[in-house]
Amino acid sequence: MNPSKDAETAQIAPTAALILIGNEILSGRTQDKNLAFIGSRLAARGIVLREARVIADSPDVISATINTLRTQYTYVFTTGGIGPTHDDVTADCVAQAFGVELPVHAEAERRLLEYFRGRGVEPNADRMRMARIPQGAELVDNPVSIAPGFRMENVFVMAGVPRIMQAMFDNIEPTLAVGPSIGSVSVVCDLPEGDFAGDLRALQETLSELDLGSYPISVENGARVVLVARGTDVVKLTQASDQLQALVRRLGGTIYGDER
Amino acid sequence: MNPSKDAETAQIAPTAALILIGNEILSGRTQDKNLAFIGSRLAARGIVLREARVIADSPDVISATINTLRTQYTYVFTTGGIGPTHDDVTADCVAQAFGVELPVHAEAERRLLEYFRGRGVEPNADRMRMARIPQGAELVDNPVSIAPGFRMENVFVMAGVPRIMQAMFDNIEPTLAVGPSIGSVSVVCDLPEGDFAGDLRALQETLSELDLGSYPISVENGARVVLVARGTDVVKLTQASDQLQALVRRLGGTIYGDER
Repeated sequence: MNPSKDAETAQIAPTAALILIGNEILSGRTQDKNLAFIGSRLAARGIVLREARVIADSPDVISATINTLRTQYTYVFTTGGIGPTHDDVTADCVAQAFGVELPVHAEAERRLLEYFRGRGVEPNADRMRMARIPQGAELVDNPVSIAPGFRMENVFVMAGVPRIMQAMFDNIEPTLAVGPSIGSVSVVCDLPEGDFAGDLRALQETLSELDLGSYPISVENGARVVLVARGTDVVKLTQASDQLQALVRRLGGTIYGDER
Repeated sequence: MNPSKDAETAQIAPTAALILIGNEILSGRTQDKNLAFIGSRLAARGIVLREARVIADSPDVISATINTLRTQYTYVFTTGGIGPTHDDVTADCVAQAFGVELPVHAEAERRLLEYFRGRGVEPNADRMRMARIPQGAELVDNPVSIAPGFRMENVFVMAGVPRIMQAMFDNIEPTLAVGPSIGSVSVVCDLPEGDFAGDLRALQETLSELDLGSYPISVENGARVVLVARGTDVVKLTQASDQLQALVRRLGGTIYGDER
């Protein structure tokens, strides 16, 4: 990454942080898939995801993390902890973080009652906990399992189950600001990083508007490295693609693909 | 999670934070696999991973994050940013965080030279950057690609490539303190969470030494929920397993497995 470029981006692109809530992610029981989804969808909209934090189902930690991050970034997204069980405490924590009440939201209650009754499911007290929404928040629709997420100022609260989170994100996305489109070009090659590190560093200095990186990957019969350039300037990205390919050829490497 | 239990654990178990360094994780290009590996290996050793942060290849952010976390936890682990390219800045950032120099480490240099020469690879300046180790740090062996990680006080710096990170972790693991063994029992069932949330809450109150949780998962032909109890008390874990199974049966659910 080019730090000077980074500072420029900060002035023009919306920024975001993601909070992944759940003991099961920290214990290794659950492999998180939400970060990659949200990161790529935000990037596609020109919103820079600056950090993600994975934290436990601990009310004080959740509230403090929300309050730390919501003042630093344009948007904060959370996943996890909005179901019916005792370890689902995210709504309580958001209310605490903002210093507001957590009343039953009439529309959320209506949707849940209709959904449960339509399926012959008892709308017991635990299920109806999911109708409690921090005072002043707006609902985020959940077309999969109805229990809504919500937006409280710049904080978007979503489910942890990837399929439900993704459906909620689909609904949130059109309401987000659009930043300068962040494009990327990439070249997959068989050169070890040490072969091209100096040339790549020089190219980064020439293409200072872009972020250049290289990422080793494993393939069936050996190792490859993906050379990537990311940025908002389409002309520079095209130049980067050409120059990355030229660099690989000049060093005697084979190009295995161009992920552009 | 049971907050009172959480406070007790903090007094007896070593704690840890994990810092995943890399723009490629935040942009969604790379699906992280290191958190789940490290989280489960730490849990197996009785070390509680309290949080993980995914941050960009930004020197100031990396240094500040290391300094924030190393005073809060028994151990801090980092992955990523120790290769030969311009965006590999983790060693520089650790040196900056601890206020020490970053000289060439004689043993690291020796290993790298031997490795590169044995493979007929030019030990150019970029490759030899990987021999720079913060003053006072100890090497962490890298049997895969030789370039070492290192330990600086309570901070362990590892590669980002999973295969290399895992080999480094194998070498680090025996040097870590051992906490009370954290075991878990689980029951997979077909009940919706809302059916058992009240009973699970009551069971959590009875088994206050354990952390009870429920995690919806998708399977080929529908949805399942995994009920999990985690903790250090083997007798209580056995009780939890029996009571979770009894709970599912009492509510008319089917048990699809017991991951114990």
